[in-house]
Amino acid sequence: LDETTDSIKHKSYNFYTFRRPINHFIQDKRFLSQTSCIDFLIQQSFDFNKLFREGISYLNNVEEDEWRNTIKEQQRLKTESYNSNYNRNHDIVLIPEANQEFIDDVVKQLEAFLASNESELQLPKCNSFLRRLLYQTNSEKFHDKIHLRAHSVNSERILFATKLKCKEESEEIDRIFFEKLKSELDDYIGFSQVIRMIVKSEKIIVGHNFLLDFLHTIDKFLTPLPHDYLDFKDVVKSLFPAVYDTKFIGSSQHFKSIIPSTVLGQLVHTVTTHPFNLPPCEIEQGGQGYDINDSKEHEAGYDSFITGLSFLAMWKHLGDQHNLILSDLIGRRGEGLLKPYKNKIFLMILADNQFLDLEAPDRNVYVSWISKTSAYVALYKRDQAALALKTLCQSDTYSIITFARRQRQLAGADLSGTVQPSPIKRRIITNETTQSKRNKTGKFEGTAFFPCRN
Amino acid sequence: LDETTDSIKHKSYNFYTFRRPINHFIQDKRFLSQTSCIDFLIQQSFDFNKLFREGISYLNNVEEDEWRNTIKEQQRLKTESYNSNYNRNHDIVLIPEANQEFIDDVVKQLEAFLASNESELQLPKCNSFLRRLLYQTNSEKFHDKIHLRAHSVNSERILFATKLKCKEESEEIDRIFFEKLKSELDDYIGFSQVIRMIVKSEKIIVGHNFLLDFLHTIDKFLTPLPHDYLDFKDVVKSLFPAVYDTKFIGSSQHFKSIIPSTVLGQLVHTVTTHPFNLPPCEIEQGGQGYDINDSKEHEAGYDSFITGLSFLAMWKHLGDQHNLILSDLIGRRGEGLLKPYKNKIFLMILADNQFLDLEAPDRNVYVSWISKTSAYVALYKRDQAALALKTLCQSDTYSIITFARRQRQLAGADLSGTVQPSPIKRRIITNETTQSKRNKTGKFEGTAFFPCRN
Repeated sequence: LDETTDSIKHKSYNFYTFRRPINHFIQDKRFLSQTSCIDFLIQQSFDFNKLFREGISYLNNVEEDEWRNTIKEQQRLKTESYNSNYNRNHDIVLIPEANQEFIDDVVKQLEAFLASNESELQLPKCNSFLRRLLYQTNSEKFHDKIHLRAHSVNSERILFATKLKCKEESEEIDRIFFEKLKSELDDYIGFSQVIRMIVKSEKIIVGHNFLLDFLHTIDKFLTPLPHDYLDFKDVVKSLFPAVYDTKFIGSSQHFKSIIPSTVLGQLVHTVTTHPFNLPPCEIEQGGQGYDINDSKEHEAGYDSFITGLSFLAMWKHLGDQHNLILSDLIGRRGEGLLKPYKNKIFLMILADNQFLDLEAPDRNVYVSWISKTSAYVALYKRDQAALALKTLCQSDTYSIITFARRQRQLAGADLSGTVQPSPIKRRIITNETTQSKRNKTGKFEGTAFFPCRN
Repeated sequence: LDETTDSIKHKSYNFYTFRRPINHFIQDKRFLSQTSCIDFLIQQSFDFNKLFREGISYLNNVEEDEWRNTIKEQQRLKTESYNSNYNRNHDIVLIPEANQEFIDDVVKQLEAFLASNESELQLPKCNSFLRRLLYQTNSEKFHDKIHLRAHSVNSERILFATKLKCKEESEEIDRIFFEKLKSELDDYIGFSQVIRMIVKSEKIIVGHNFLLDFLHTIDKFLTPLPHDYLDFKDVVKSLFPAVYDTKFIGSSQHFKSIIPSTVLGQLVHTVTTHPFNLPPCEIEQGGQGYDINDSKEHEAGYDSFITGLSFLAMWKHLGDQHNLILSDLIGRRGEGLLKPYKNKIFLMILADNQFLDLEAPDRNVYVSWISKTSAYVALYKRDQAALALKTLCQSDTYSIITFARRQRQLAGADLSGTVQPSPIKRRIITNETTQSKRNKTGKFEGTAFFPCRN
């Protein structure tokens, strides 16, 4: 908020993030994507060459620790190798007859090099097997005099020999090598540092229908997602004090009569017209940003900008009803108005209450009406389902059948022979019918709840 | 061979292949790559945007059959739906109060449309749940009068209504839709047609260190790789009469004294100088191709070109020893000279005989010497290992221990505490020592063979 002009200042950013391979100590990750996602992005002119060439790397906290430990361990092994020697740590390979001449020739070159004034000798190109033989031979013959190290020259591995004045010099070379590796760590943590700073700032996070984005943000840039759902809630609580989802807010009781569609492009169109009253917004001086008419849907920076606008407009709408001026809105009083929407993320898959509540305990029973007299019912604790079924099926005014039975009914009634997909098992209650009465004695098939604890 | 000029004509091609998503009936594939591969390719200026935007699709024979069956099944379901109706094949959804007004409004629009002279009506934008309600309502009220179909408009799904004069007209619309799908099949088979034509031509296939390329070529463009290794050999035999690997030929007994390195870039350098005698090669008139000095290593077309040159030069070298002129070389007599190299693919992982023989039965015993007196021994049939161990360990002139024991010895002798990697279990024979004598009584740990039958 710029109080002199009573307008909101904003900046937007796009980051290309690509997990770079680190070095041969640490296995590289896999790039995995549905081809339909790639197809969608390329149609939106997403630049994959830029992603792969210039993308910023990232590490979560566990990966960073692994990285540090691996470097430390490699350094320890290297130091130890000076106290033993190469061949003590490796299987001795018999030099094949065909390679003996080559090895003898290199040994002569190394002897000449030792006698010369040169400080470095480039050895002839050779494959990894020959390099192995050379390491082994060098360790046998010149262990404390010559140091071999491979460098990439025109994307080929070439061995270079340098003279060792003493063990200490050799150790110094390695110390510098490992210090350099450690100093590169910041580059590999890369974009994670931006997200860590956002966490540190304790600012509110706003997204649109962003459960998947949110999960990836935590998993890739901060800390691996826990297996347990309640642990996940704890992790979120420790990282972000307040999270808002504009799709959830827009589809809530308060707004749904004045917001016909919560699809982002349509939502931002709705909230920039009557009865909404978006305060003036300007790009911060010297910053980068978008205008709403840029229409760059699916470009991350633009999408986050119009999400921010939507959030602001709906918040302002709440504030107007309490006659809050802008400077009061963006303060403690205004934040209070957001309480019903705080830490709730939109979740389409839930039919009755479409959100995931990051704060409150989950309800024990979910009910999803499918007609005026029938509904699906799911229990949070699936092990209570058998008991509930047994207790509830005593009534004469309604009937209750298992979800599996319901699925079979639908499948049987379907002349085309296809079975309804059932990603989530649910339980069903239907009005009393002869058929469902018979089904009461059907085998109990269990129920499940999503999102569920493992 | 151009007999008038006694020179070899060649053409080279680069194909970008990318498995395109097909349609919502068929799940799209995943794009999966090591980030280090992506990193390597982008450094070689590989154009990923071109790959994803213009890449040619492909299907192997099983996928093509699935495609045909899915289309057929969808068409059958559609036809049946005219004999029943939409609601018979779907769960009826209760229209939520909040949406009733919207639905009523569309029903009025559809009634007006029926009474009008318009041939098509675009319905208001709505989300997938509302579209579902509209399909259901349309089927209830206008089942035989109005046909609804969703089209993508600016990447949003929009419903369009058309009038049905009769059931036949509606069926005709669908018939055209499915015929179009079928005619698109050729586009989806795409690059597989090129490989199928190569198979049909029965020409020889030449690659360089190309086991992985060969496996992908078969699996992606022709037929899924069988699980069983012997079945795989049968598949190859049925597809390709003759396959040659220039890395295998170059590292064979005949050539290894005159070819210091079989790395492709170095191999082609070697075979274009004495004692090799590469015949003159020219790009075919009107065709595309490379010159050896283009130095475009890692570009598929260039790599295949220099692989071809290497093959030709080594073949010519064999022919020169039999005083074959070029036109005899490229004929039955010349082909006979290639017999020792036919259908053998280079395989680095095998220490003693570095190739995979696509024709001959695999040997029963593999021996890999690690010093003048010790060797690893592997059996083809691992279930014979226990018997072999029991029989062979009776001698006083040598000792034999299990591979697992050998691994433990190496690990124990290794002060750094690291354990040798053991991707492939092998058995070891070492000279008699006190320690290995004790080990004779060690628990038998089994052995394995690679490539192995499942």
